[in-house]
Amino acid sequence: MAIELYWGSGSPFAWRVMLTLEVKGLAYESKLLEFSKGEHKTPAYLQLNPRGKVPTLKDGDFVVYESLAMMAYLDRKYPNPPLFGKTPEETGLIWQTISECESYLVGEGNKVVRPMFFGKGLDLIDEIQQAAQTVRQEFKNIDGRLGQSNWLVGEQISAADITVFPLVQLLLRAASKDAARPFNLGLLPLSQGFPNLARWIERIEALPNYQRTYPPHWR
Amino acid sequence: MAIELYWGSGSPFAWRVMLTLEVKGLAYESKLLEFSKGEHKTPAYLQLNPRGKVPTLKDGDFVVYESLAMMAYLDRKYPNPPLFGKTPEETGLIWQTISECESYLVGEGNKVVRPMFFGKGLDLIDEIQQAAQTVRQEFKNIDGRLGQSNWLVGEQISAADITVFPLVQLLLRAASKDAARPFNLGLLPLSQGFPNLARWIERIEALPNYQRTYPPHWR
Repeated sequence: MAIELYWGSGSPFAWRVMLTLEVKGLAYESKLLEFSKGEHKTPAYLQLNPRGKVPTLKDGDFVVYESLAMMAYLDRKYPNPPLFGKTPEETGLIWQTISECESYLVGEGNKVVRPMFFGKGLDLIDEIQQAAQTVRQEFKNIDGRLGQSNWLVGEQISAADITVFPLVQLLLRAASKDAARPFNLGLLPLSQGFPNLARWIERIEALPNYQRTYPPHWR
Repeated sequence: MAIELYWGSGSPFAWRVMLTLEVKGLAYESKLLEFSKGEHKTPAYLQLNPRGKVPTLKDGDFVVYESLAMMAYLDRKYPNPPLFGKTPEETGLIWQTISECESYLVGEGNKVVRPMFFGKGLDLIDEIQQAAQTVRQEFKNIDGRLGQSNWLVGEQISAADITVFPLVQLLLRAASKDAARPFNLGLLPLSQGFPNLARWIERIEALPNYQRTYPPHWR
């Protein structure tokens, strides 16, 4: 039975799993859910994922949700190429980078992204500015590491790159919105403030089949 | 060279790593940092962990921080017993449980724990009540799963149990404080509302060397 991926356009968490599938060269059936139609809250979907979120992966009879869990499952089931390290040390540093992304970039990033995308909370100026400062600091850390190496951990793309990349793209898209102009978020132009990060994005965009993973409603 | 663990008493994240070390039967040198003396912010410690948080693990020359990364590293380096699953499916479900813990229990749990421990924010009654409701829902989910099996995933203790356990203990300790009494958090007595969860705690407390991992200032 084919792998089925339930996802939503623009979800950075779904994007991670699509990139994982493409980097591993795995065929899958795309099940694009329309949030606006509540397709992630239907009884049939809630049977797969009781939290009613995307993404969810179905592989034969096995169902797993939470993006990092889906990535860990796919890596163990389809180990080539390995995305969680070739040595214990690489494994440790990959999960360290992933944990830092989840702890410092996801939550603070959201405080920047949501107002720019949905127009709500644009009056929380201090909160947005403070979150943007955290984001800039995290970008700076990442940029520094990418000055030493093409990829965040090790000599090839790993789950660390795949986890961080969609969030960076989401933040850059938010920063390019008209609503972001008065805030001086300090993220764009990326190649000026974070040149290594900009080159890393180009590297990922040049992966075969990258275009298949790009959120359709962003085109 | 010995494994060194830098930790702080009462940190649920440090507790996870101590449990991992004990379950694997690994000897390690305990480096207990006193937060009140700022020992997690000294230049020497910031060299190991630039974020100035606990825990941090040093194994020979290799340094890794972020609790889940430390656990993933230890499991790959010292695979017996395996804590991240014996099959791809177990691996997926273990990381799913861990991700759910990080997404739903850590943040909301903090909103309950901090006011009870530090006395600050006790006036944010609605926020505390709402967070407690999320915590009860997560406890209910966990209790339901522990009604089917002794451990959260698979037939033996895994990283899922080890990740969730210290947070449950932290929440129960917070709920037992005098400051918690007016809030009716609905967590205690645990054996009444969540009997399977209560038995699972006893099961973990019965592990050899469990006492070595118990936060010293809680005694």
